[in-house]
Order: sequence, then C-alpha cells, then structure tokens
Amino acid sequence: MPAVSRERFLRWFAELAGIGRTDTGWNRLAWTPLEVEAQEWFRGAAESIGLEVRRDGAGSLWAVTPGAGDGPYVCAGSHVDTQPDGGAYDGALGVVCALEAVAAVLESGQPRSRPLAVISFVDEEGARFRTACFASRAIAGELDVDAVIGAMGEAPKIHGVTRESLLASREELRRVGAFLEVHVEQGKALVDRGQALGIADVLAPRSRYRAAFEGESNHAGTTPMAGRRDALVEAARFILAVDEAARARPGAVATVGRIEVSPGSTNSIPGRVECTLDARAPEVETVEDLVAGLRGRFPDARIEQESRNTGARFDSGLRAALYASAESAGVPVGDLPSFAGHDAGILAPHVPAAMIFVRNPTGASHTPAEFASDDDCVAAAQVMAGALAELAR
Amino acid sequence: MPAVSRERFLRWFAELAGIGRTDTGWNRLAWTPLEVEAQEWFRGAAESIGLEVRRDGAGSLWAVTPGAGDGPYVCAGSHVDTQPDGGAYDGALGVVCALEAVAAVLESGQPRSRPLAVISFVDEEGARFRTACFASRAIAGELDVDAVIGAMGEAPKIHGVTRESLLASREELRRVGAFLEVHVEQGKALVDRGQALGIADVLAPRSRYRAAFEGESNHAGTTPMAGRRDALVEAARFILAVDEAARARPGAVATVGRIEVSPGSTNSIPGRVECTLDARAPEVETVEDLVAGLRGRFPDARIEQESRNTGARFDSGLRAALYASAESAGVPVGDLPSFAGHDAGILAPHVPAAMIFVRNPTGASHTPAEFASDDDCVAAAQVMAGALAELAR
Repeated sequence: MPAVSRERFLRWFAELAGIGRTDTGWNRLAWTPLEVEAQEWFRGAAESIGLEVRRDGAGSLWAVTPGAGDGPYVCAGSHVDTQPDGGAYDGALGVVCALEAVAAVLESGQPRSRPLAVISFVDEEGARFRTACFASRAIAGELDVDAVIGAMGEAPKIHGVTRESLLASREELRRVGAFLEVHVEQGKALVDRGQALGIADVLAPRSRYRAAFEGESNHAGTTPMAGRRDALVEAARFILAVDEAARARPGAVATVGRIEVSPGSTNSIPGRVECTLDARAPEVETVEDLVAGLRGRFPDARIEQESRNTGARFDSGLRAALYASAESAGVPVGDLPSFAGHDAGILAPHVPAAMIFVRNPTGASHTPAEFASDDDCVAAAQVMAGALAELAR
Repeated sequence: MPAVSRERFLRWFAELAGIGRTDTGWNRLAWTPLEVEAQEWFRGAAESIGLEVRRDGAGSLWAVTPGAGDGPYVCAGSHVDTQPDGGAYDGALGVVCALEAVAAVLESGQPRSRPLAVISFVDEEGARFRTACFASRAIAGELDVDAVIGAMGEAPKIHGVTRESLLASREELRRVGAFLEVHVEQGKALVDRGQALGIADVLAPRSRYRAAFEGESNHAGTTPMAGRRDALVEAARFILAVDEAARARPGAVATVGRIEVSPGSTNSIPGRVECTLDARAPEVETVEDLVAGLRGRFPDARIEQESRNTGARFDSGLRAALYASAESAGVPVGDLPSFAGHDAGILAPHVPAAMIFVRNPTGASHTPAEFASDDDCVAAAQVMAGALAELAR
C-alpha cells in the first residue's frame, strides 16, 4: 500500500497557500496573474515527481505519468482559483492531495496497468464571470462557448484560451477514465458525526429562481397604510415563507441571497422588488415541491427558474475503492451528500467520479475561516492514494 | 374681495409646465439650467403684474410690491424645481397660485397697509444633493452651510450662491411677516372627504432610522437550515413588524424603502442587512412609541436614529384667514395634516405660516400621475387671494 509523505504534503500546501494570500483572505481569482502563478506552481510540483504537464484548450493543466498517451487515465484533481477573500483549503487542498496521492503511488513501486493524471482545473469558482466549473463544463460539453467567449472579453487569453480551443477541449473527456476529488467540507456534518472524512454519495439537485413582486411606489409620508401596495412587505413575507418551507423539508436548504428594491429611496414606498431563490435538496422532487408550495402562496409573484441541476450520483465502484482504502488506513468515514457545485459533480454524469470531504471544524466556506486539521488533510491524501493504487492496478 | 383670473392662471400654469417637460415626466432639477429657465419665467410673470424681483443669497427669487422696502411682507410662494421624472403640480402649482393671488389683490384696488411678496424658493426637492428645502432652511438658519457647500461642488454657482451669500441669506427671515403655500395633496384624503381644499393643521413629526441586522454569512448550499443565522430572514421579520406597527396606530405611516444585503450573492446566506426606516405620525409620541415597540421586538438589531423632526403647528391666525376666505368663496375645505416636508413647514416654527392642499384624484406624488382639476387649482388661488387681501389690509 502506498504511503503519503506528511512532510511533502504540508510543504506543498504551504507553498500554494503562499500565493494570493492577503490580510483579508486568499485572492487567486480565475483569469488573473495569481491563478497563473498558482498553475505554474502546480506545474513545478508535478514535474518534481516525474509527471508530464500539458495545458488543455480550456486552460486546465494535466500532469500525467510518462508514456500515458491519450489515456484514459485514472484522474484526481481540483482547482487553484479562489473566491474573493476566500479560504486556503477550497480547491487547493484537492490539488495538493491529488499530487501527494499520485506521488505516493509512484513511489510505492507497485505495478500499474493504467496511467495516472492530476488535473488542475481553471475557474471552478466562477467568481468573475458567473462561469462556475468553467473548465470541467468545457470538457463535458456543457459550456455555452459563444456566450462565455462573448462575456469574458480579453480574460481567456491569459490561459491561451480561445473559442476554437474551448470547442476542441470537449475531446479531453474521453481521457478521463475516473475522477477523484478531495474537498474541504462546506459545513459541519462530519464534526457532528466524529468522522474525519466523508465519501460523497449524491450531488444534491439544485435550482435557482428569480422572484419579482409588483406593488405601487408612492410617497412614504403622504400615503396612508390602508392604501399601500408595498412590494417589499410582500417580498418579506416571501423570504419568511422560503425559510419555513425549507425547514419543513428534511435535508432541504433554500436561500434568498440577493434583493433589489425600486425605487430604493428612504422616502418612497417600494414599487417593485426582485430577489433570488436558491433551493437544494437530496431529491429533485423535494426542490420542486418546495417551489410549487411558494408559487401557491404567492400567486401574484413572478417566480422564474434561472437554472436547474438535477444532481448526480457518485460512482459506486469508486466509492467502494475509497471505503476500502479508508478501512485499510483506519480512517473513520461515512456517506455525505454534496450541496455545492464541484468539478467532480460536473463530470459525474459522464464518467465515474467520486469525492472525499474533509472535516471542517468551523463549517465555514469561501472565507478565510474555512479549516481542516493537518491530520485530516493527510488522511484524505492517504485514502486517495490507496484508492488510486487499486484503480490503477 | 379680489377675484382671480382663471384665464391668466391657466396660461401661467401651462407656460411653467412647458419647461422641463419630457416623455417620462417633468425634469426641472435644482441647480440645473432648467431650474434657471423656470426662475426666469417666474421673473417675467412677476414683472408683468408690476412686482419687483430680486434674488436672495440662497438663490431664491422674491417678487415684491413696489416700495415694499425691507418688509416684513405678507408672503406666498413655493418652488419650481421637480423630482427626476416628477409631476406638473408639485411646487409649480404653489408658485402660480401665489402669483395669481397677488395679481388679484393688486387688481382689486383695495387699500393695503402691508407689502406683499411672492417667493420662488430654490431646491425644495433636494433630489440631487439630499438638500431638501435648501433655500427655506437657509433663511431659517437651519442649513449646515459648510457641509452643503462642501458637498455641492460647482452647482451653487448657477444661482450665484456662495458660502458667504448663504450665510448672509439668514437675514431674509425677518422680511417674512407671514407665509402661505399652496400644494397639490400627496394622497387622497380630500377625494375621500369630498373637499376641494385642505387647510394644513400640523406638519407631522417624522423620524428616520437606519436598522442593521447581523447574522452569519455562509454557503447557501452546504449550511443546513438548523445552523443558519440569516440576516435577511430577520430583516424580513422587521419589515413585516414595521408594517403591522404602523397599521396598529391610527394616522401613523412607516416605511422600509431601502435595503442592502451583504454579501449579496445568490450562493451566500446573507450575513448582514441594513435598511432604512421612515416613521411619521400626527403626534411625535406615536412615532417614538412605534419605534420603541420595534426595538423591544428586535433587541439584537441596531436601530439608529438618523434624523428627527418634531413637526410644527401651522399658525392659527393664518388658518382662520384661509377658512374665512374659503367660506366667502364657497369652497368646501377641512383640516389636513401634512406628512411631507415643505418650505412652509420649515418656516412654521419661525414665522406665521400656513398651507392649502389641493385635492389630487390620483393621490400620486413625485410622478407625472399627480393631478388636480383646473377648478380646484383656481379655487386654491382664489382662497389664497382672499386671505392675502385680509392679511395685507
């Protein structure tokens, strides 16, 4: 069984965490020189363990075992970009775990019949252009290439990406024989259960909506309460109904995260309000039932679906390999649904994919407060190494 | 008794309404060439009935009877500036009524012992620099001259206003022996009562607050409902409580007109929300009781008072003169509190002041939908003329 190097793992993690670190958090935004710097760090680390690195048409780096050819490879990876003022672990932990796991497999000298690859995807966060999971969507053929090229201006050039290279990147998907991703947990379920790691079972279905409420704007002083049609009062009822509806459905979450009020003046009754609604649950029927209930309670609101993701089940064979590896390593694990978008979730409907979540004592995500202990991080790399060794055998 | 000229009144009103009229409403914003054009129209109309026009240090025009000297004058007036895409009546109706009323008094040939003046105040709306009732505040000594001069850049120059002229304009107040203002009603109380005109009794006390709600921002997908502290959910409870609290107190109005959510992302639980609260009622105790109730229900919210106006009672002698004039003219009138800021309200604590509101079938304000019938407008000018004649006798 391969054995990961704790010292190398921590050194690599510290090196990557040194890029884009500021007083207010980590800032390696996609399509900026700091993402390039992090990718170049990845290239150097991968080459230091004998991997050969190439860039695909979506800008991602692929580090493969020599002589791997066109694959398919047993792949692991994640991304190096962050949210604005993000944390040290999101993305970076997955990339370093993948590198360390592959290094350990190579050092173990065990015979392999399949090539290995580490993928460092570009722009998973989508923080700049609302292009979440950009590079995994590109190879999965799920990116509206003309729309994103139209919206991103000169930005793609920084990774050599063009409309033509993006279209060509769809050919990469067949090189992925399997994909494993480690990610810091974005909640506290593992803390509550006393487990170091979670093995993802499903990527929860998710839908995004835009809700609009029409009232009548008028003078805030001279319009009696009885004659008012205040759109913000109706939106407030909606916000509370969203909260109640999610609490009434086990496992569901629903959030109003943005709101816009017109005319938006201290002195004016709100005449129009628009807000977002993000709803997720382990079963797509739960999401749809929740939203149907809201439509019933607010028949005058315009509630329009903006996006819909029916979720994915992660691969049972890969999950079995991860459970077996965790048992060998003596690491306490359990199933955990994923409620956020990840490159592994994009790939899951197309190729065998699986995820390992690492316990996060703060439960925070996309802030500098997100955290995982060194022990838990190293355990994740070790569990991944055992699974990769088995899958490549 | 003086008799107003319906023909002249309507011609003047149409002339002024022709300035700054656009497809989306009237746009004579303060400190712009269109406000200057409207003031120059005022100068011409006033001179056509023999008044002498001068500009004060705050930019307002004073049209006085010849030989009036330093007064004090029996004054009437309003303003010619509008909100962006405002209506035809707000301000303009008061200026034209004042001109027509003074013209009728002069034409009546009745003996006068006191001089008359029509004042066309600058920047009543405060739409550009949040300087509502700029010019009346200036002469009342209620303007923070250094602050507004600092905030307004080059704008004051258009009316020849400087820091020094503004400070000097405080001397104007002693020239105001009385002030009458006609204004279109900014609600529908007179329609409901079947009265053409309302005689203002009080300027309702008004307080503005800023309320802040602290929660905890986190990932909208991965944070279970049970662990959430969503600041927008708490703010929604507040918005509904504001609405309920005002409805429970007869005559009170309360409005949340602006709201800001942080981080304001579809994908993030709101961690902080700030909103405005505007509360008014005929009695200041009602406003304070309403807000105290909200503080009790939301002990964790930070509710800070931003401004406080304890209101004003309009002058009983002037009100009696207006009632007597209305009775002579056979115009149905009744008391009406004012729930908005007006130049007459600014002057009321300092000099005898009163207001006439004109029935508004739409109840709209600050939009092109605001309206008053020609008959009601002419009636307002006639009632004002009768009162001015009596006061100047």
